[in-house]
Amino acid sequence: MFVSSRSVRISRSVRIAICCSCFWLTGWLSADEGMYPVSEIEKLNLASHGLKMLPGDIFNPNQACLIDGICKVNGCTGSFVSPQGLIITNHHCAYRAIQSASTTENDFLANGFQARTLADEIPAKGYTVRITEAFSDISEQVLAVLEEGMGFAERTKAIDQRRKELEKAAEQANQGMRAEVAEMFAGKTYVLFLYTYITDVRLVFAPPASVGEFGGDTDNWEWPRHTGDFTFLRAYVAPDGSTADYAEENVPYQPKRFIQVDPNGVEEGDFVMLIGYPGRTARHKTASFLVYEEQVRLPFIVDLYGWQIDQMEAAGKENRALALKLTSRIKSLANVEKRSRGQLKGLRRAKIADGRAAKEAELQAYIDADPDRQKQYGHLLSEINNVYAEMGETAAFELNLQNLTSASRMMNLAFSMYDSAVERQKPDLEREAPYMDRNFDLTRKRQLLNQQNIDPATDKVLLSGMLDRLAKVPAAKTVDALRVAQLKDNLRNNYLDSMYTQSWLIDKNYVEDGFAKTPAELKELDDPFLNWVIELYPEYLKLREKGKERNGRLDQLYGELVAVKQQFQNANFVPDANATLRLTFGHVKGYSPEDAVYKSPITSLAGVIDKTTGQAPFITPQKIMDMHARQEFGRYRNEKLDDVPVAILYDTDTTGGNSGSPILNAEGELVGVNFDRAFEATINDFAWNESYSRSIGVDIRYVLWITGDVFGATHLLQEMGVKE
Amino acid sequence: MFVSSRSVRISRSVRIAICCSCFWLTGWLSADEGMYPVSEIEKLNLASHGLKMLPGDIFNPNQACLIDGICKVNGCTGSFVSPQGLIITNHHCAYRAIQSASTTENDFLANGFQARTLADEIPAKGYTVRITEAFSDISEQVLAVLEEGMGFAERTKAIDQRRKELEKAAEQANQGMRAEVAEMFAGKTYVLFLYTYITDVRLVFAPPASVGEFGGDTDNWEWPRHTGDFTFLRAYVAPDGSTADYAEENVPYQPKRFIQVDPNGVEEGDFVMLIGYPGRTARHKTASFLVYEEQVRLPFIVDLYGWQIDQMEAAGKENRALALKLTSRIKSLANVEKRSRGQLKGLRRAKIADGRAAKEAELQAYIDADPDRQKQYGHLLSEINNVYAEMGETAAFELNLQNLTSASRMMNLAFSMYDSAVERQKPDLEREAPYMDRNFDLTRKRQLLNQQNIDPATDKVLLSGMLDRLAKVPAAKTVDALRVAQLKDNLRNNYLDSMYTQSWLIDKNYVEDGFAKTPAELKELDDPFLNWVIELYPEYLKLREKGKERNGRLDQLYGELVAVKQQFQNANFVPDANATLRLTFGHVKGYSPEDAVYKSPITSLAGVIDKTTGQAPFITPQKIMDMHARQEFGRYRNEKLDDVPVAILYDTDTTGGNSGSPILNAEGELVGVNFDRAFEATINDFAWNESYSRSIGVDIRYVLWITGDVFGATHLLQEMGVKE
Repeated sequence: MFVSSRSVRISRSVRIAICCSCFWLTGWLSADEGMYPVSEIEKLNLASHGLKMLPGDIFNPNQACLIDGICKVNGCTGSFVSPQGLIITNHHCAYRAIQSASTTENDFLANGFQARTLADEIPAKGYTVRITEAFSDISEQVLAVLEEGMGFAERTKAIDQRRKELEKAAEQANQGMRAEVAEMFAGKTYVLFLYTYITDVRLVFAPPASVGEFGGDTDNWEWPRHTGDFTFLRAYVAPDGSTADYAEENVPYQPKRFIQVDPNGVEEGDFVMLIGYPGRTARHKTASFLVYEEQVRLPFIVDLYGWQIDQMEAAGKENRALALKLTSRIKSLANVEKRSRGQLKGLRRAKIADGRAAKEAELQAYIDADPDRQKQYGHLLSEINNVYAEMGETAAFELNLQNLTSASRMMNLAFSMYDSAVERQKPDLEREAPYMDRNFDLTRKRQLLNQQNIDPATDKVLLSGMLDRLAKVPAAKTVDALRVAQLKDNLRNNYLDSMYTQSWLIDKNYVEDGFAKTPAELKELDDPFLNWVIELYPEYLKLREKGKERNGRLDQLYGELVAVKQQFQNANFVPDANATLRLTFGHVKGYSPEDAVYKSPITSLAGVIDKTTGQAPFITPQKIMDMHARQEFGRYRNEKLDDVPVAILYDTDTTGGNSGSPILNAEGELVGVNFDRAFEATINDFAWNESYSRSIGVDIRYVLWITGDVFGATHLLQEMGVKE
Repeated sequence: MFVSSRSVRISRSVRIAICCSCFWLTGWLSADEGMYPVSEIEKLNLASHGLKMLPGDIFNPNQACLIDGICKVNGCTGSFVSPQGLIITNHHCAYRAIQSASTTENDFLANGFQARTLADEIPAKGYTVRITEAFSDISEQVLAVLEEGMGFAERTKAIDQRRKELEKAAEQANQGMRAEVAEMFAGKTYVLFLYTYITDVRLVFAPPASVGEFGGDTDNWEWPRHTGDFTFLRAYVAPDGSTADYAEENVPYQPKRFIQVDPNGVEEGDFVMLIGYPGRTARHKTASFLVYEEQVRLPFIVDLYGWQIDQMEAAGKENRALALKLTSRIKSLANVEKRSRGQLKGLRRAKIADGRAAKEAELQAYIDADPDRQKQYGHLLSEINNVYAEMGETAAFELNLQNLTSASRMMNLAFSMYDSAVERQKPDLEREAPYMDRNFDLTRKRQLLNQQNIDPATDKVLLSGMLDRLAKVPAAKTVDALRVAQLKDNLRNNYLDSMYTQSWLIDKNYVEDGFAKTPAELKELDDPFLNWVIELYPEYLKLREKGKERNGRLDQLYGELVAVKQQFQNANFVPDANATLRLTFGHVKGYSPEDAVYKSPITSLAGVIDKTTGQAPFITPQKIMDMHARQEFGRYRNEKLDDVPVAILYDTDTTGGNSGSPILNAEGELVGVNFDRAFEATINDFAWNESYSRSIGVDIRYVLWITGDVFGATHLLQEMGVKE
C-alpha cells in the first residue's frame, strides 16, 4: 500500500481514504478559521478567497507540488528555497544549533553566522528534517486491537502498541523513511504518515541575535514586532540520496520542489496561506477541560515558570558564560510562561469556556430529547467532566511531582537515564516512545546536550524550590521518598549540598556510559541523584499509569462525543492540530486588540530604530542604524512605508509548530516566514477568534535586505534566484 | 495698587504691566504648544484655531469672565459648575478627602459617597480652594534687594525674604486674601498674584474607586483610558462671604461666574482649551540639566520609589486596614515612579537633551561671534553646566540623605517637628515657607494626618532600606550621625527595634504637643527619633544652604541666559509653568505612540467592560455591567461609538497641576475634566512634542451618566442646569 521509493507518489486512493474519515463542511467554520489537512484543500474554493494557483499545484498525489517544498525541522516548519536543500526557518527554531556551535570566543548567537561556501557550513547538532511523502487512514487497523472488557489503561496501551507496530512495519517496508501514526480524532481516527527523514542538517546563515531575537522576551507574543526571526539551514544526504548522519562526503538534499522567493512581498489586504506542522490544539475539548486549564494548569505554569526564570536570570546576571548556558532554557520557559498568560487573558476576556459550555448545553438537550440517544450518549459530558474534576483535585501533587524532574536538570538527567534503562529492557514496541530503538539515539543526544548546560548551583536553587512547593502539598507528605522535602531548611540544604558534591552526573563520559547501563548497574553506581530517582520511580510509574487510564477513558468518551456532535450539527469537523501537515489561509490584516487601539499589519525599519535603546533585547547593529540613516533600502523599499518592511500580520489559523512556516502569496511564492502570534492570539490553541487571531511573520523583504544588503551573503540570494 | 475688596476688579494697568515682562511671539512655538498666562490670550488669535467666543470673555480685568469659574484645589485645578460653589475636580485630587472620611465600616473609597442635601456634605480635611483675583509685575521691587558683592546663598535668601515681605504686605492690604509671588523667569521676572482663599471645602459626590480609579496604577499615565476620575466638592464661606474655617453656619461660596456644563461633549477634531494651574516645567533649562535628570535623578527615583512601593504593597497584602493606611502614599509614589519612567523613555527616544544641546551650540556660536557678547555671556552655559555636574557628583549622598527623612514617615515627622521648632524661633519672614505663620497651621495639620497613617513595622523596613543605601555611599561614611548605617545587620536591627519601641511619635497628642515646643523642649523629650534628627540636623542645614547657593548661582545665570537668548532669537518666551493660572488650547486628537500602532481619541463604556476582570484595579460595579448590557445610555449615547464615551484625548500642553482642569469647548462650556497624560507625554515637563504630547480627560458624558443615571444624584445635574 505504501511506496518504498521516494520517486513513487501518494496514490489517489490514499487521498480518498483520508477524505472519508476527516471530511468537514466549510459553512461550519468562521471565515479564515481552520488548519486543514492538505488532502482537503480542493474543497475550500480558495480561488474565491484570492488564490491564483490551482489547488492541485499545492497538493497533488501524482506529481511534485508545493508541499514537497515544505519540511518539518524538529518541532518547527521550514521551506526549501533552492534546489540544493537550502532551508529557511526561524532563528528561534535554529537557536539550539547556533547556541551549541557558539563559544565565548566565537559567539555566533551574538555575532551571527555566515558560511561563505558549503564547506563552511556547521552541523546543526540534534536537528532533523522531515518531508511528508504519503499518508493513509488506518483507523480500522488501529481500533481492531480493542476488545470488550479492556480497562482504560489497557486500551491506551493496546492502541499505543498497535500504532508502534504499524509504524515499524511501514518503516520496514519503506527503508530510510520515518513513519508516524497520528491521532486525528481521539479514539476514532488514525492516519499513518510517511516521511523522508534527514539527520544531517547544517547551519548556513544566522543574523546576530540583536536582529534575530530583537525585542526578545519583551516583544515575544506581541504585535507590533520588529524581529528578523529567520535563519538558513541546509539538508544533506549521502551521495546516493539516502538518509545519513553527518559525514563529510554527504551532499545537499535535492527537494522535489522548492518554494520560489518573491522579493516584492505583500501589501495590506493581500491573500496569504501558510503550510506547516501545527503542533496541538484543543478545539474539540469540553468546557470542563478549558476550566481545568484556566483555573488549574495555566496559573500553575505561570507561577512556576515565572519563578524558575527569575532564579536563572539572577544566576546569570554577573556571569556571561553561565548566562549563555541558561539562556536556551530561560527562553523556552519564558515562551510558555507568557503564552500561558496570554491564554489566561484570552480565555477570561473572550469567555471561551462559557461559550463552549453553552454549546454543550444545547448538545445535551439534543441528546436528552430522544430516549435512545439519551441512553447511548447521555452520560458522556458528565463523565468527561468528572475526569477533569479529578485532575483538578490531584493537580497540586501531580504537577509538582512532574516538575521536580524538569525544573532540576540533574533530576531530569537521572530520571531519563534510569527510565531508559528500565524501559529498554522491554521489547521495543512496549517501551515509552523516547526509548524505542528508532528514537533512543536522539533522546540520548538531547540529554547529553542538556547535560552540558547544567549549572549545579542554579540547579540546586531550582530543586530546592520544587521541594518547598512539594512540602506544602498534603499528598506529598505521605510519600516516604519525598521525606527530604520535609527537612528543616539547614538540614535540607546540607543534604542537597552533599548530593551535588557527590554526584558524577556533571561528568559527560559518566553520563554517556550511564545511558548504556541496566537498572541494576545504575543502582550499583550509588550516585545520589540516581539513588533518589530510583526510590521515587514507583511514584512516577503510578503517574504514568494514571495518565494512560485517563487517556483511555477520555479517548473513548471523546470518540463517542464526536459521533453524536456530528449527528447534532449534521456536519463534520477539522481535526485538532497534531503536528501533521496542514494548510491555513487568510489575509494580511490589522486588528483592534482593545478599545481605541488599532494595530496596522506591516511594521518598518524605522520602528526597529525607534525601539532601539542600546540595551538588550533592543540593540541594533551600527551598520543597520547607519544604512537606515542613509536610507540604503536597495530594492526593498516599500512605497507606502517609504522604508523596508520588517514584519507582517495576518489572520490565518496557526499554533506552535507553525514557527518557520512559509507565508505564501496567491501564487504560492514565499513572502515571509511565520514566527509568532499576537498576545491575544495565544487562545488559538483553544479557539480561533476573528477579532484576535493574528499571526506574525518576518517580511521576506527584511530577510533579503538583512541577508544580502546588510551582511553581504549575496550568494544565498543568487542561490534562491533573487535578483539584486 | 491692589484691590482690597473682591468686588473691585483687576485694573487694565495691572494687565499691561504683566504683558511687558513676559511677552512672546507665537511664531516661535509649535502649533498647540504653550501654557499661556491668561493676560496673553488676546494675542493668540484663538478664533483661527476654532474658538467661538471672544478672548475677552475668557479673561477680562474689568468684568466677570470665564477664569472666575476656575479655582485651585490644593495642588490641582477645579471648576465651579453651579452658582452655589459646586466644584468638579478629579477623584484623585479629592482622594485624601475621601480617604480620611472613610473607615472600614464606612468605606467611601470603596463604595463612593453621595450627599443628598447640603447638610450631608462632609468636610474635606486639609483642602483649600483659591481663585485668582489679580496679578501684577513686581520684578523691580523684588530685584531691588540685590546688592553688589552678595554671595549666591545670600542672594537667594534676600530674594526669598523680599518675596515674603511683598506677600505679607499684599495680604495686609487685602484682608482674607492670599498673596503669592511667582517667579516667571528665574532671576528676572516676578509676578504677585492675589487669591480669594477658601478653607471650608466639603465632599459632595464621589464615585466608588472602582469607577474613579478604574485601571489604577496599571493604567496610570496610559491611553486608552477608562477611568471616571471625577469628584464633586463644594466651597463654603462665612455667612458674610468672608473666608472661614469649617463651621456649621457657613454657606456655599457664590463664584462670580460658573462654567456651564455641555452634556453633548465633543467629537474627534474639535477645538478644546484648558485653564488651570500647571505646576512646573523645565522648558528653559539647559541640556546639562536634562542630562542630570536622565542619568542621575530620574533613575534614582525609579529605583528608590519602586523599592518603597514593593515594600508597602507586600506589607498591605494580607491586611486591608494596613493597606488602607498605606494606599495614599503608595499611589503618590507610584505616580511619580511611573511618570519618571515615562520621562526617561521620552528623553531617550526623542533625544531631547541632544536637541537642546544642539540649540545651545548655536547660541554659543552666536555669543562667541561678537567679542563684547562673548565677554558678557560667554561663560554662562559652561557655568550652568558646572552646577549640574557638581550636583551629579554629590547626588548619591544628597538624594539618599533627603530621602531618609521622606521614606521613613517617623523620620519625616521628627524632622518636621524639630525643623519647625528651630525655624519658628526666627522672625516670621526669615523662616522656611512651611513654618511661616500663614502656612504653619496647614503644615502641622498635614503632618498630623500623615502621622495617622504610620505603620511602625513598615516604616522600619523603609528606614532600614535607606540605611542600606547610605551605608554604600562613601560621603555618608564620614558623617558620624549616620554611624547606625554602618552597624552590622543584627545590631542595627536591634537598635532600630528599640527606637520604634521607645518612641512616642505614634501618639497623636504627643505629636500635637510636640509641634508647640521649642528645640530645647524637644531635646528634653529624649525621643529616639527626635534625638537622631537633632544630631543629623546640621547635615540637613548644610544641604539647605548648598541648595540656596546653587539656586542663587542658577538664578543669576539663567536670568542672563534668557536675555542673550532673546537677543539671539529676536523673540521672547512663554514662562515655565509655576502653579499660576494658564490657558492651553488644542484639539481632540489621536496619535501613534509607535510604529504600526494608532490610538484613537475617544474611549467607550464597552472598553470599561472589556477591561473588567473582577480583580482590582479592574472591577466594575454590577449596576454598570447591567446597564451596559441593556444599553441604558440615556441621553449620553454617542452615535459614532453607539455607546457612552468615557475618556478623551487631546494635544493641549499640560503638566501636573492641570489635574482637574476643565476641558472647555469652543464656546467655553465644560466637556470634560482633565486628569492625566499619555505615557509619552510625561516629557511635557521638559519639552512639548507634536507627536507625543497628549493629555487625557474624563468625558462629561461619562461624568453625567455615572452621577445621574447610575448613582441617581440627579439633584446635582439640576444644580448644574443639565436636563435629563
